[in-house]
Amino acid sequence: MKSPAAVWFINGPNANLYGLTSVGVYGNETFADLQSRCERRALEEHLELVFRQSNHEGVIIDWIQEAMSRSQALIINAAGLTYTSISILDALLAYGQGGRPVIEVHMSNIHRREPFRDHSYMSKGATGIIAGFGSEGYELAITAARRLIDRNALAAG
Amino acid sequence: MKSPAAVWFINGPNANLYGLTSVGVYGNETFADLQSRCERRALEEHLELVFRQSNHEGVIIDWIQEAMSRSQALIINAAGLTYTSISILDALLAYGQGGRPVIEVHMSNIHRREPFRDHSYMSKGATGIIAGFGSEGYELAITAARRLIDRNALAAG
Amino acid sequence: MKSPAAVWFINGPNANLYGLTSVGVYGNETFADLQSRCERRALEEHLELVFRQSNHEGVIIDWIQEAMSRSQALIINAAGLTYTSISILDALLAYGQGGRPVIEVHMSNIHRREPFRDHSYMSKGATGIIAGFGSEGYELAITAARRLIDRNALAAG
Amino acid sequence: MKSPAAVWFINGPNANLYGLTSVGVYGNETFADLQSRCERRALEEHLELVFRQSNHEGVIIDWIQEAMSRSQALIINAAGLTYTSISILDALLAYGQGGRPVIEVHMSNIHRREPFRDHSYMSKGATGIIAGFGSEGYELAITAARRLIDRNALAAG
Amino acid sequence: MKSPAAVWFINGPNANLYGLTSVGVYGNETFADLQSRCERRALEEHLELVFRQSNHEGVIIDWIQEAMSRSQALIINAAGLTYTSISILDALLAYGQGGRPVIEVHMSNIHRREPFRDHSYMSKGATGIIAGFGSEGYELAITAARRLIDRNALAAG
Amino acid sequence: MKSPAAVWFINGPNANLYGLTSVGVYGNETFADLQSRCERRALEEHLELVFRQSNHEGVIIDWIQEAMSRSQALIINAAGLTYTSISILDALLAYGQGGRPVIEVHMSNIHRREPFRDHSYMSKGATGIIAGFGSEGYELAITAARRLIDRNALAAG
Amino acid sequence: MKSPAAVWFINGPNANLYGLTSVGVYGNETFADLQSRCERRALEEHLELVFRQSNHEGVIIDWIQEAMSRSQALIINAAGLTYTSISILDALLAYGQGGRPVIEVHMSNIHRREPFRDHSYMSKGATGIIAGFGSEGYELAITAARRLIDRNALAAG
Amino acid sequence: MKSPAAVWFINGPNANLYGLTSVGVYGNETFADLQSRCERRALEEHLELVFRQSNHEGVIIDWIQEAMSRSQALIINAAGLTYTSISILDALLAYGQGGRPVIEVHMSNIHRREPFRDHSYMSKGATGIIAGFGSEGYELAITAARRLIDRNALAAG
Amino acid sequence: MKSPAAVWFINGPNANLYGLTSVGVYGNETFADLQSRCERRALEEHLELVFRQSNHEGVIIDWIQEAMSRSQALIINAAGLTYTSISILDALLAYGQGGRPVIEVHMSNIHRREPFRDHSYMSKGATGIIAGFGSEGYELAITAARRLIDRNALAAG
Amino acid sequence: MKSPAAVWFINGPNANLYGLTSVGVYGNETFADLQSRCERRALEEHLELVFRQSNHEGVIIDWIQEAMSRSQALIINAAGLTYTSISILDALLAYGQGGRPVIEVHMSNIHRREPFRDHSYMSKGATGIIAGFGSEGYELAITAARRLIDRNALAAG
Amino acid sequence: MKSPAAVWFINGPNANLYGLTSVGVYGNETFADLQSRCERRALEEHLELVFRQSNHEGVIIDWIQEAMSRSQALIINAAGLTYTSISILDALLAYGQGGRPVIEVHMSNIHRREPFRDHSYMSKGATGIIAGFGSEGYELAITAARRLIDRNALAAG
Amino acid sequence: MKSPAAVWFINGPNANLYGLTSVGVYGNETFADLQSRCERRALEEHLELVFRQSNHEGVIIDWIQEAMSRSQALIINAAGLTYTSISILDALLAYGQGGRPVIEVHMSNIHRREPFRDHSYMSKGATGIIAGFGSEGYELAITAARRLIDRNALAAG
Repeated sequence: MKSPAAVWFINGPNANLYGLTSVGVYGNETFADLQSRCERRALEEHLELVFRQSNHEGVIIDWIQEAMSRSQALIINAAGLTYTSISILDALLAYGQGGRPVIEVHMSNIHRREPFRDHSYMSKGATGIIAGFGSEGYELAITAARRLIDRNALAAG
Repeated sequence: MKSPAAVWFINGPNANLYGLTSVGVYGNETFADLQSRCERRALEEHLELVFRQSNHEGVIIDWIQEAMSRSQALIINAAGLTYTSISILDALLAYGQGGRPVIEVHMSNIHRREPFRDHSYMSKGATGIIAGFGSEGYELAITAARRLIDRNALAAG
Repeated sequence: MKSPAAVWFINGPNANLYGLTSVGVYGNETFADLQSRCERRALEEHLELVFRQSNHEGVIIDWIQEAMSRSQALIINAAGLTYTSISILDALLAYGQGGRPVIEVHMSNIHRREPFRDHSYMSKGATGIIAGFGSEGYELAITAARRLIDRNALAAG
Repeated sequence: MKSPAAVWFINGPNANLYGLTSVGVYGNETFADLQSRCERRALEEHLELVFRQSNHEGVIIDWIQEAMSRSQALIINAAGLTYTSISILDALLAYGQGGRPVIEVHMSNIHRREPFRDHSYMSKGATGIIAGFGSEGYELAITAARRLIDRNALAAG
Repeated sequence: MKSPAAVWFINGPNANLYGLTSVGVYGNETFADLQSRCERRALEEHLELVFRQSNHEGVIIDWIQEAMSRSQALIINAAGLTYTSISILDALLAYGQGGRPVIEVHMSNIHRREPFRDHSYMSKGATGIIAGFGSEGYELAITAARRLIDRNALAAG
Repeated sequence: MKSPAAVWFINGPNANLYGLTSVGVYGNETFADLQSRCERRALEEHLELVFRQSNHEGVIIDWIQEAMSRSQALIINAAGLTYTSISILDALLAYGQGGRPVIEVHMSNIHRREPFRDHSYMSKGATGIIAGFGSEGYELAITAARRLIDRNALAAG
Repeated sequence: MKSPAAVWFINGPNANLYGLTSVGVYGNETFADLQSRCERRALEEHLELVFRQSNHEGVIIDWIQEAMSRSQALIINAAGLTYTSISILDALLAYGQGGRPVIEVHMSNIHRREPFRDHSYMSKGATGIIAGFGSEGYELAITAARRLIDRNALAAG
Repeated sequence: MKSPAAVWFINGPNANLYGLTSVGVYGNETFADLQSRCERRALEEHLELVFRQSNHEGVIIDWIQEAMSRSQALIINAAGLTYTSISILDALLAYGQGGRPVIEVHMSNIHRREPFRDHSYMSKGATGIIAGFGSEGYELAITAARRLIDRNALAAG
Repeated sequence: MKSPAAVWFINGPNANLYGLTSVGVYGNETFADLQSRCERRALEEHLELVFRQSNHEGVIIDWIQEAMSRSQALIINAAGLTYTSISILDALLAYGQGGRPVIEVHMSNIHRREPFRDHSYMSKGATGIIAGFGSEGYELAITAARRLIDRNALAAG
Repeated sequence: MKSPAAVWFINGPNANLYGLTSVGVYGNETFADLQSRCERRALEEHLELVFRQSNHEGVIIDWIQEAMSRSQALIINAAGLTYTSISILDALLAYGQGGRPVIEVHMSNIHRREPFRDHSYMSKGATGIIAGFGSEGYELAITAARRLIDRNALAAG
Repeated sequence: MKSPAAVWFINGPNANLYGLTSVGVYGNETFADLQSRCERRALEEHLELVFRQSNHEGVIIDWIQEAMSRSQALIINAAGLTYTSISILDALLAYGQGGRPVIEVHMSNIHRREPFRDHSYMSKGATGIIAGFGSEGYELAITAARRLIDRNALAAG
Repeated sequence: MKSPAAVWFINGPNANLYGLTSVGVYGNETFADLQSRCERRALEEHLELVFRQSNHEGVIIDWIQEAMSRSQALIINAAGLTYTSISILDALLAYGQGGRPVIEVHMSNIHRREPFRDHSYMSKGATGIIAGFGSEGYELAITAARRLIDRNALAAG
């Protein structure tokens, strides 16, 4: 059986607008619905999930620092800050010291959008990247976090 | 229960050297071992898996064209061709017409390597991208393929 | 007669320092004076004006999201964030969905300043741009907002 | 009451095709209609308006030189020459010596079009810029010219 | 039998110097000779040919606008303006609205000359491009115009 | 009467997918149909046509080398390899030594597609270029080959 | 004797993590220890020191504006914001009007790190720069502030 | 004694504004005065001088073509067209065939002005360049033309 | 006496055309002659030489992988693939693991040719580089291979 | 008490012109005065100071090599060579092997000058950098040298 | 009559090889001959000429500094250092303070040579530039120096 | 038997530090040892070797000019000047006139070091290049010089 572990899932600017402007396969899913779906998946993976969103770069950095002493893995969709925030990258690099997994996730395939979205600072601080799978990618990221935590335990064990 | 479906998993140049030069968490896993692991995972996902590797760009394009009439999703790790082959991209774009999923996968996080690996032509033709999770990423890609095939069926249904 | 409508006018970092460091045609006009002048102009245009300033990118995004349900047009002088904030651009793009007008305004002609100010992310999300007219441009922007709201009403009508 | 003043409004290549290819909010407005609308607005602003169009860069420069002794402000939509003509820029810089206002206007938001339209030489010689407001922008530019002429008079007075 | 149609063939700066400085396969062919050869070919293709040359960008734009109501296809060798004139491109885009063919032609292979000739603005507004065939290319362009006019008729018919 | 001559027409990766994904003016024309059409045109031009397609860069180079002793002209649509293969360029340069014509052809106008298709290595080794005329361009290229072979004969004669 | 004066020392994102991840010459010095050391040095230099840290760009700008009326010099280590924040640069430029010293300090030599750290916006608004001396640089910056305040007094006196 | 020869001196856009905006060493010298000064110098050098100015690129090209049969040397100050006109460059290259001298002259040192003036297309077609000597440079250019004509005569003789 | 060792010498696309198009110092040397000369030199150096050429990138990668278990050093002239093939680079990096020498050789000095040949991906995976010595360089490379094998033996010994 | 140590202070081209062209806070200070001031400061820091200036890159390299066996720290203001001399950088890298401190100093803030001064090769070989403090910076550099020597002693001790 | 004045004419690396490798209009003119010709021209212009050449950047800077107190104008052909030496530029800027003329001269038209010669650092410090006139340009530069000295005297007088 | 000939081997800045900082395969080989090794190799090749090192660009140019009349081939390791000295390139180009061989040698593979070392000006003036073979490369260069001298003799003979 999988050991208990905590994962923080941090969402950046405007991620909270999810579902307000279009209708997807699962109907009118809102950001709150998405959070619930992630929490269910985390439960299945025996993970405690802390799921947050902020439009403030500073708040996101505060949370990453806070997560350093409270989690075994971090998932981040930095949204528009993905392409501009070296400060969040620095926080991720600090978090990742010692091999703790950082997973970068994007709903869309950022490489098929505008050129200024074709480069991610987050990737320099991430263990792995999942992009383009829509809200499915959120669940995949939680599964991936579980795997990386287990692998770390295996390597440490 | 999940409907049967076929997925092609195509590996590019030098991918066959996997495991020859280093020892990982799972010991001396070879490329053949990795293939077996992928096939087991595919079985769990009720997917028929066609798993191939070639050092030849032309062969890879031939296979993608062949897969057009024989599969519901395609997974590709184009390795060194990722950064240079517009011809494979063209094949992927043809494959993806009509919404058939294409999943780009990389063992390493290519954005933390040399600058000339920081740009993927494959991403322009991929639905989603999974990178940096090592051999775990191969299994995640198969799971993701299952999800996207189901989502397509749901949307079509 | 013009229909009532609300316009939000959002100012970015350091905009509040206006008038502290130089003397213009209208004497020692302060940022508070400028706000009053804008409010008078809005009154003439039968517009309710919400006029705000913040040094925090996150606060500005919060306000744009808030304005989505409370206004018919948005005016933004993102100041130093003009050149760097893809996150504010994303918020503007969300605001502008459905054709709601977004007006970018700058006191100075940013194209005659340092090279790093010669490119605006805001412009990618703006309907129209007014720059270089000093504080006059603030009033012009309010007039322009009135016109665009009327044009939208005409088109919808 | 506003003092009388002359404003030249110069349009560049293909601007005369306005209205031939699409239908807008005001129906089938032609370039001649637009000119009439501008002249009415100028009348309201107590401005004598000289409104011209040419496909020839040289003619446009001739006109700007001519306007140096016959006008108090200049409005220019250099159209396709916006991005290429340093010679028109030189003429605008000569016109603007001593603080005479030069207003650059574009119907479309040039920053949302092709990359080669994302840079304007005119802006280096303009006092202010108005872009993206369609034909409304033409009227706004006339109003702005009135304001800048008044401000100059105030400063000189 | 082919239906009658008009084609305008517009030549840019210095094209009139053709033949003054070198001797080709057909001996001392001049620009007038070349025009005659084109007219013969047009006759064979049942096309009325209007063949013109100017050193003036503005004149070329005037002609393209004139051709909008008088021709079924346009051939252009913009010579030195190929690489610099966004204004001619705008005229070509207007001409081409609705699918009317625009054929860009060059005597030399511009991609084997100086780097500043390795990029053509005309190509952004052209249906097709013929380059490097010397004066033969002029005749090929007329044949191609015939084909595209016929194809349009077929599609419309 | 025209002298007999051989022309090789080589098509690159994915060119064989022509017609599978869209319907054109001539209905459901396939790649085999296109080949037949080219062969008929070659017959009219008294040319022996060798028409081939491969997804393999190496095969294409082998063919170009083979064509060196068996043809008087070469037509190439290198498709996705157009933008990346310096090795094919080298083969074309070898083929073209002594003035043998090389004609580069593209169905689409590559300059109106993605930026990474706006540059062709083939052009550095081509005598002439024909692009954007769809399948008509294939026939034009054969006609052009005829002309260039005749011109060479005339010059040699 | 030196005149009393106030200096604000502002630290950017993640600076508070100092000492958590490595052990230096002075043992396990924490960020709080570093602050104490700076305060002692300030005392020696007869300076009142306000020493702050924030992960929020907006808070840093608020502080710089606040410091405008409460200090004679400003020291800033903007950390990850060094490379991205034009808004902080604008605040520094406002602070520095009239010759008030701004000292940019970095623990590491930023020019020996990743390329994206090889350019500082802060430098455009700084009087002087001290980088690469580790925590020693913090004390040097305080000494330098003393010198520049004295020099200003001398020049004013 | 020097043999008679003709030199054309062509001035580009806005050159006619010379002297209108500033006062130099020789007092209020106008463009007409400058022309007279050049004519006197030409007389001393036994040169017939044709001195012209136009704001029209096309006119300048017409003149260069005309000068091909009427002069032994050409002097050009293309002003703002210096940086943009490949068409004038083509005309100069045609003029210069066979070794006829082309002298590029600029009043100012263009390399100490804005970056977009730091590159001259004219230089690619010029024999020699004289820049930065103000109106003196005009006279130096005439002297230089004399020298180059004599050198050509010597070489031919 | 030197110990026996095997060296693979791999030639890329079009290398087989050597000698077909020009005559050098040694008369009409063909690629087969060159191979013989290399084999003689290898014999002198007590090296078993495997000398191959292919136009196929994939074949070259297959050979490098094959050479991993059959040789002590590798010499490669990747010809046109030098500038484009990251996949061959990856194979060379795998080959070179553990210090096995890789020697890049070019007949011409690639830095004196076209700009797109001024950069070699092979160099990132090569121990040493020999370029510009024509066919002499082939022999020098064999001598150098001998030296590096000896040095490795010395270091290992 | 501080241990005795030697520091070399090397000045590059034109540094000897200091004070010839402007008057500063300390009146007409010359380069010789500056040297004296530095020597006094060195005395206070118990450092033997070797203070030199040369316009010759080679001499500066000779001195750095000489200093390798005669000093514990090096201070360099390479002046105009800062931006161009990789050879001096190589010498600094050799000097700095083993941790010996290298301090780069500039009187002006090079990042607020021309763009070609916005990049220093010296920084790649420097421990720390001090710029923008005018002649004060020279004294700060000597103090910093003292600190780094002490820190090295502490670490070694 | 012209007042006496001194001009220094400084030549950079390899300028002394002039005439060794080719034969010009004046036969086998050597660098010594060229010097004599310059001295004669200087005599005619009532100028004392100091004519020097060095391959050493440092020596050239020493000379420029020396010339500051001994000359009224400076002529420099920095040869290969033209494109690389910011240190010589700094010396020229110091020399030119107060309006003393600096004339940059080149025998060849550097803009028609390799791209790395298309940019001169010297031009940033030069009053005027003469290039492309061969050895004639040397004499023109001396004449120009006379003119600029006279103009300075006139302005001062 | 080989004919006697002289070769100059010139080493640039800091090359004399060879062996001071690391221990290689041959133990503590110094620069003097390396020189001896080269002289022995030269003897075997019947070459008179002049082996020199300088930190001064000017001295290196002086030597190359001197070598023009005293040697049949030149070997150069310009070290740090490789990447910056167009003046040395000019000297090499003069030396190489008429086909005299110039060999560029580097101990390390410069393409695997910092990006600013990935481009050599020397290569533009070199016949051949040898890099990455350590001190072995020095001996290979001497052998290569012998070959090229012989080849020249053969061609001349």
